[in-house]
Amino acid sequence: MTSLSDNDTTVAELKKRILAFARERDWEQFHAPKNLSMALAAEAGELMEHFLWAEPSASRDIARDPVRRAKIEEELADVIIYALEFANMTGIDVSAAIQAKMTANARKYPVEKAKGRSDKYTEL
Amino acid sequence: MTSLSDNDTTVAELKKRILAFARERDWEQFHAPKNLSMALAAEAGELMEHFLWAEPSASRDIARDPVRRAKIEEELADVIIYALEFANMTGIDVSAAIQAKMTANARKYPVEKAKGRSDKYTEL
Amino acid sequence: MTSLSDNDTTVAELKKRILAFARERDWEQFHAPKNLSMALAAEAGELMEHFLWAEPSASRDIARDPVRRAKIEEELADVIIYALEFANMTGIDVSAAIQAKMTANARKYPVEKAKGRSDKYTEL
Amino acid sequence: MTSLSDNDTTVAELKKRILAFARERDWEQFHAPKNLSMALAAEAGELMEHFLWAEPSASRDIARDPVRRAKIEEELADVIIYALEFANMTGIDVSAAIQAKMTANARKYPVEKAKGRSDKYTEL
Repeated sequence: MTSLSDNDTTVAELKKRILAFARERDWEQFHAPKNLSMALAAEAGELMEHFLWAEPSASRDIARDPVRRAKIEEELADVIIYALEFANMTGIDVSAAIQAKMTANARKYPVEKAKGRSDKYTEL
Repeated sequence: MTSLSDNDTTVAELKKRILAFARERDWEQFHAPKNLSMALAAEAGELMEHFLWAEPSASRDIARDPVRRAKIEEELADVIIYALEFANMTGIDVSAAIQAKMTANARKYPVEKAKGRSDKYTEL
Repeated sequence: MTSLSDNDTTVAELKKRILAFARERDWEQFHAPKNLSMALAAEAGELMEHFLWAEPSASRDIARDPVRRAKIEEELADVIIYALEFANMTGIDVSAAIQAKMTANARKYPVEKAKGRSDKYTEL
Repeated sequence: MTSLSDNDTTVAELKKRILAFARERDWEQFHAPKNLSMALAAEAGELMEHFLWAEPSASRDIARDPVRRAKIEEELADVIIYALEFANMTGIDVSAAIQAKMTANARKYPVEKAKGRSDKYTEL
């Protein structure tokens, strides 16, 4: 099996593999948007569990610890798998949606106002 | 601005744009894994809110409703933006992590056992 | 140890026991609102995991299954423990806050408009 | 209307009011455990949003800021309302469940080992 890497893997390629996995198991019947959004949120919760009591700066070290890192990679993969399957089931083009959202974000957070600040755009 | 689409956009391309957006605003200081995992979970919660009281089958219709759909695309984009920025900050190759997780899932959920069933692998 | 029951246990009594548990272990230093909100959300995610692929009606049966139920009681306890410790750390009176929220909800969802409908108040 | 306060409000009293609110609106049909667990997790996500980019110590100040605090009280109330309605729909005695969980936690986290440490019990 060839190893995939972000540099030469399109979003469509990942979506296609995830869809094939579900189809082969006849799982599309369970993959209603409601259920996938729950699974996504539950996996996001598992990812958070690695960092509950740590200071933010210490969480950077946790993510570098080899044992923890293997688990963290798995949780992140689960999150993105469910997000892409959600996109499969609803026909969303993820790249276009991200591009549109980033264009909107750029208007809400212009560089000169947002630089170095974590405030919400309503408070800039 | 050229429109992006999943068919010809690599994961690395999306990661690069998201990182550039954060760098331009000097936001990497806030993007500790702990904080990004929280933001990701919070956005996953917003995505769920569209489907709280609907039957799973009805959630498929909700995702097709034009007004709702625009919002749903935005929430999904937010989720994936934070997931990819988490990958940026921790140096995770998303495609490799997904491939590894799907290989593990294929072992836990062999087609002949898992077909048409939503049970957890521990109960198959 | 006397068994507690909802009929004769005040919210203050639960809060007091939860605070004493944390103090005895010198854990208040970790119990910043940020951290407790994460722990709460992560536990809510674990509670959801019991129901991911089930129809809503089937989730009522899952909650009655003895094996599952024991776990579900534990997850719900975890959720409420973190919520009450959040109230401890921030000085929130939970009963007053719930009463205020229900008064607001009663205005947003008047019986004659909301009866039998799951729509958000903005769509009633 | 008499004001409720934690000192003299039992858990059963809160549960009763929340159930009456739902019954009056014929909402029990929507309050399957699956749906309530989603609503709970979504509200926990909204509570987290107040603290996303703050250091844990700064989150203590955020919770004291009068404007933020009013919102935070509302989100916490929402979380506990859904948790108690979940208990209503599944017949869980919250006080007994919390007592049982704290007894288990006391065994997992004995004071002499856990004092001043945020490690998971498996790592103590």
